[in-house]
Amino acid sequence: MKHRIVTISRQFGSGGRTIGRQLARQLGIPCYDHELIVKMAEQSGFTAQYVAEHQESAGPGSWLAGAFSGRSYPGFSNQDYLWKVQRQVILELAEQGPCVIVGRGADYILRDQADCLRVFIHADMETRAHRIVAQYGERDQAPEKRLRDKDKRRAAYYQLYTDRKWGAVENYDITLNSGVLGLEPCVAILAQLYKAPHADGGI
Amino acid sequence: MKHRIVTISRQFGSGGRTIGRQLARQLGIPCYDHELIVKMAEQSGFTAQYVAEHQESAGPGSWLAGAFSGRSYPGFSNQDYLWKVQRQVILELAEQGPCVIVGRGADYILRDQADCLRVFIHADMETRAHRIVAQYGERDQAPEKRLRDKDKRRAAYYQLYTDRKWGAVENYDITLNSGVLGLEPCVAILAQLYKAPHADGGI
Repeated sequence: MKHRIVTISRQFGSGGRTIGRQLARQLGIPCYDHELIVKMAEQSGFTAQYVAEHQESAGPGSWLAGAFSGRSYPGFSNQDYLWKVQRQVILELAEQGPCVIVGRGADYILRDQADCLRVFIHADMETRAHRIVAQYGERDQAPEKRLRDKDKRRAAYYQLYTDRKWGAVENYDITLNSGVLGLEPCVAILAQLYKAPHADGGI
Repeated sequence: MKHRIVTISRQFGSGGRTIGRQLARQLGIPCYDHELIVKMAEQSGFTAQYVAEHQESAGPGSWLAGAFSGRSYPGFSNQDYLWKVQRQVILELAEQGPCVIVGRGADYILRDQADCLRVFIHADMETRAHRIVAQYGERDQAPEKRLRDKDKRRAAYYQLYTDRKWGAVENYDITLNSGVLGLEPCVAILAQLYKAPHADGGI
């Protein structure tokens, strides 16, 4: 049986993670975000810290660097290996039951394995800059630069492993501008859609 | 006072027009779609048929052709003139009160003049092909070809006059895949959002 799963892709600072957590709480199902890193560490043999530093939204020492170094053997980077582990972890979680999964190409990985409600959350630069400064504090780098950098890495990572364009409408059932609409209305809409019967017999 | 206005951009065959009409009925406000052509004809001096053939989703004898011919005077095509008239008509309607406007770059035209809920409706090729054949009948040209052609024209038209990318998430508050979600749930969500107070103090 295919479980009902919400996959949330999101621009950095858009509140997509918060929306995912609140949605899962409202629906009474688990939300996987940081939990994926712990599971990936268990399955891969890497430390959770290494996984966190080399996964989709990595900073310095990221997958982009990893693409040219950190290879366990030629032609197959540690990043490639982590994608395989990530894929496996996500497929196993999708087997267990309905859930919300934040980021990590889950929409692509589960395209045939689950009835996915595929969501993308975005917001304007100003809203996101405020959010990341409030949440993670000031850094040497300007918030706009941090946002652009992180989005670029997520987009490149997604494109590399899925061959799809990150944030392109055709890859999602719904995209929401959390800056204009607000986080709570976004959660309410997604909860409503998750529960409703759908045109194609899926969620 | 800025009125609350829903602008609906849509892929050809996605049911965006139907969603707009049903939403307007549900909200008890007018929906402008074909009505715009009539008003543009009145203001421009062109016939309604000429306007219809030279506006955003034109077929042969379209604005693309018009860009290189049909110029009333050098450097300014009839299409450019119609865009100005369209802009004027949309601004006047937005002054009159809340409404739904389907297509025609209204999201861009009203960016400073109204509290817009900016919507984009899309669907997969198969769903859209079924829909246009059911609605407009078979043609010599395959439905997929007709869809691609019309989308390309709408995208080019939008880009030309707004300098924005048609269908790019950042230009909309919400995008909906009507093929997966179904038309009625789309209407319900938009009605809910229209009525809700929003994060930025807009709609």
